[in-house]
Amino acid sequence: MPTSLPIPDHIALLAAQARQNRLTKPTGSLGMLEDIACRFAAWQQREIPQLPHAAITVFAADHGVTAEGVSAYPSAVTAEMVKNFAAGGAAICVLARQHNARLEVVDVGVASTLPPLGEHVVDAKVMTGTHNLAVQAAMSREQAQDALEAGRAAARRAIDAGATLLIAGDMGIGNTTASAALICHFCALPAATVVGRGTGVDDAGVQLKARVVEAALARLTQDTESLTVLAEVGGLEIAAMAGFYLEGARLGMPSLVDGFIAAAAALVAQALEPDCTLWLMASHRSQETGHLAALAHLGLIPLVDFRLRLGEGSGAALVLPLIASAILLHGEMATFDSAGVSDKA
Amino acid sequence: MPTSLPIPDHIALLAAQARQNRLTKPTGSLGMLEDIACRFAAWQQREIPQLPHAAITVFAADHGVTAEGVSAYPSAVTAEMVKNFAAGGAAICVLARQHNARLEVVDVGVASTLPPLGEHVVDAKVMTGTHNLAVQAAMSREQAQDALEAGRAAARRAIDAGATLLIAGDMGIGNTTASAALICHFCALPAATVVGRGTGVDDAGVQLKARVVEAALARLTQDTESLTVLAEVGGLEIAAMAGFYLEGARLGMPSLVDGFIAAAAALVAQALEPDCTLWLMASHRSQETGHLAALAHLGLIPLVDFRLRLGEGSGAALVLPLIASAILLHGEMATFDSAGVSDKA
Repeated sequence: MPTSLPIPDHIALLAAQARQNRLTKPTGSLGMLEDIACRFAAWQQREIPQLPHAAITVFAADHGVTAEGVSAYPSAVTAEMVKNFAAGGAAICVLARQHNARLEVVDVGVASTLPPLGEHVVDAKVMTGTHNLAVQAAMSREQAQDALEAGRAAARRAIDAGATLLIAGDMGIGNTTASAALICHFCALPAATVVGRGTGVDDAGVQLKARVVEAALARLTQDTESLTVLAEVGGLEIAAMAGFYLEGARLGMPSLVDGFIAAAAALVAQALEPDCTLWLMASHRSQETGHLAALAHLGLIPLVDFRLRLGEGSGAALVLPLIASAILLHGEMATFDSAGVSDKA
Repeated sequence: MPTSLPIPDHIALLAAQARQNRLTKPTGSLGMLEDIACRFAAWQQREIPQLPHAAITVFAADHGVTAEGVSAYPSAVTAEMVKNFAAGGAAICVLARQHNARLEVVDVGVASTLPPLGEHVVDAKVMTGTHNLAVQAAMSREQAQDALEAGRAAARRAIDAGATLLIAGDMGIGNTTASAALICHFCALPAATVVGRGTGVDDAGVQLKARVVEAALARLTQDTESLTVLAEVGGLEIAAMAGFYLEGARLGMPSLVDGFIAAAAALVAQALEPDCTLWLMASHRSQETGHLAALAHLGLIPLVDFRLRLGEGSGAALVLPLIASAILLHGEMATFDSAGVSDKA
């Protein structure tokens, strides 16, 4: 079946690579920054890409699996953190302000009813938290579809507001357990190689999480339909992030993938529409076990490793200035000819 | 002999670490950014550090050792690139503009006489390029001292202009050979483990460089005085960068160390005044062989690896927004108490 997604522009990519070799620097000496500029050239279909306008959407939802004791923090923190986002006190708020990025929070499944929190907190609640994936499907296929659509709608809102680079963030106590289950399934890995400490559980907690993940995975086979996988062992915010990536790709807009939860969401998106990964760039390597395996399956290489394990889209937001540097260098540096600098002998 | 250098404030460091643990995030989840904020707290002697004002000084000089054929580019490129710096077309110019950093270029030993290039290109020429270190001392001890002093004076100018964070960059065709020799000496490593491709020589070029470095090192022993080592196998811009770091440390101002050449300069500074490394932060890991060994000897761990091998201070300039993020997060994030978020169970 031919893909319905647009594909990045190969001609612009080649033109950008040729330009890099004319700039006043030893060939290849800007390393990763050369690759970044060229990928944006391909995405924007122009030899010299423009600085992107970034928008960050944080999807929040609760997880029934917290009943198993898989998280170091109580479930109530999900709602409390949404309020913290609205008040501007969370890490992602600080980074959004620093980088002048639009920030929206979308409640796709917080367990409690939130008070009105202003125009940047959107109510798109599908259900009041997932069921406990250790013992039953986290949600129905219809609910998974609704959460995917909530993410698609959020991507359209961001793009309508002028965004040309999308970042999805997550908030959901318990979501490293659901993400680990998705990564295990899509990468065909055992729980022990993917489950990590999340927000900070101890060794016993890691073992408990691994048992929970194995129990959930026992309901799936490699032939299970992807939407069913998402419904059985996923999360509402993870589904929404997958939809967000898919809609970005459909509209020809790149997304910067954050950490562990984001990688799980990207795997869901890839399972649903494989070519969507052409529109993804990995930002950072997370501290969470299994993250690199997920990125490898996506064909993505992280730009940086700051030893982060926060979520919220924070790792993706942190690399925005690096992307700006790559694009500015690409567009503004002199060429050997224009500057009268001698090229390699 | 007690050091004459100031030392960072331990009380402020501890207060900053305690503050990090009260911010609304899992303990330690901001990884490297927590460490960065705390180091700035110690440097600035305050629990909540202010955003630094960065100044970049690029030191330019030529190297007689290019007569041996150790570089992929002709010597003339050093002067040509100084003109490119003055015209704003080099990579470091783009990054200085992006980050609103003061940029000054100091000619400490370009082989040719430069025309007047405006107020941001300073003439502090010690000699018209070094002698060929393959066969004789690169410079006299007096010339090495003069170059160190030129770097000290540049640091004072930057600080007088308001800088609170110093970056030294380099421009000098042939300078990876001199830097490799310095790193070999100070880290007690053989040439083969330190010499790399520089701006892009082939395998035969690397072998040639290694032979040149071994020949130069044969004039030294581990007992040779550090100033003599610098004079025998160093470079004028490397000496100036060492002086720049030393003066920063003397005045209680931190420096961000760039790549391979900068690490060699930092080793010279360390050999002259060991405690100066308390005021250094490594920015990035260079592609050049032997860079990590030099950083390890300095007790420094690079923040990022962008596969750079450009010099000019570019790698250090690229991490300025990361430092800003670390400091903004430290100062602006809500605490668990202030935001009403539940802490770890």
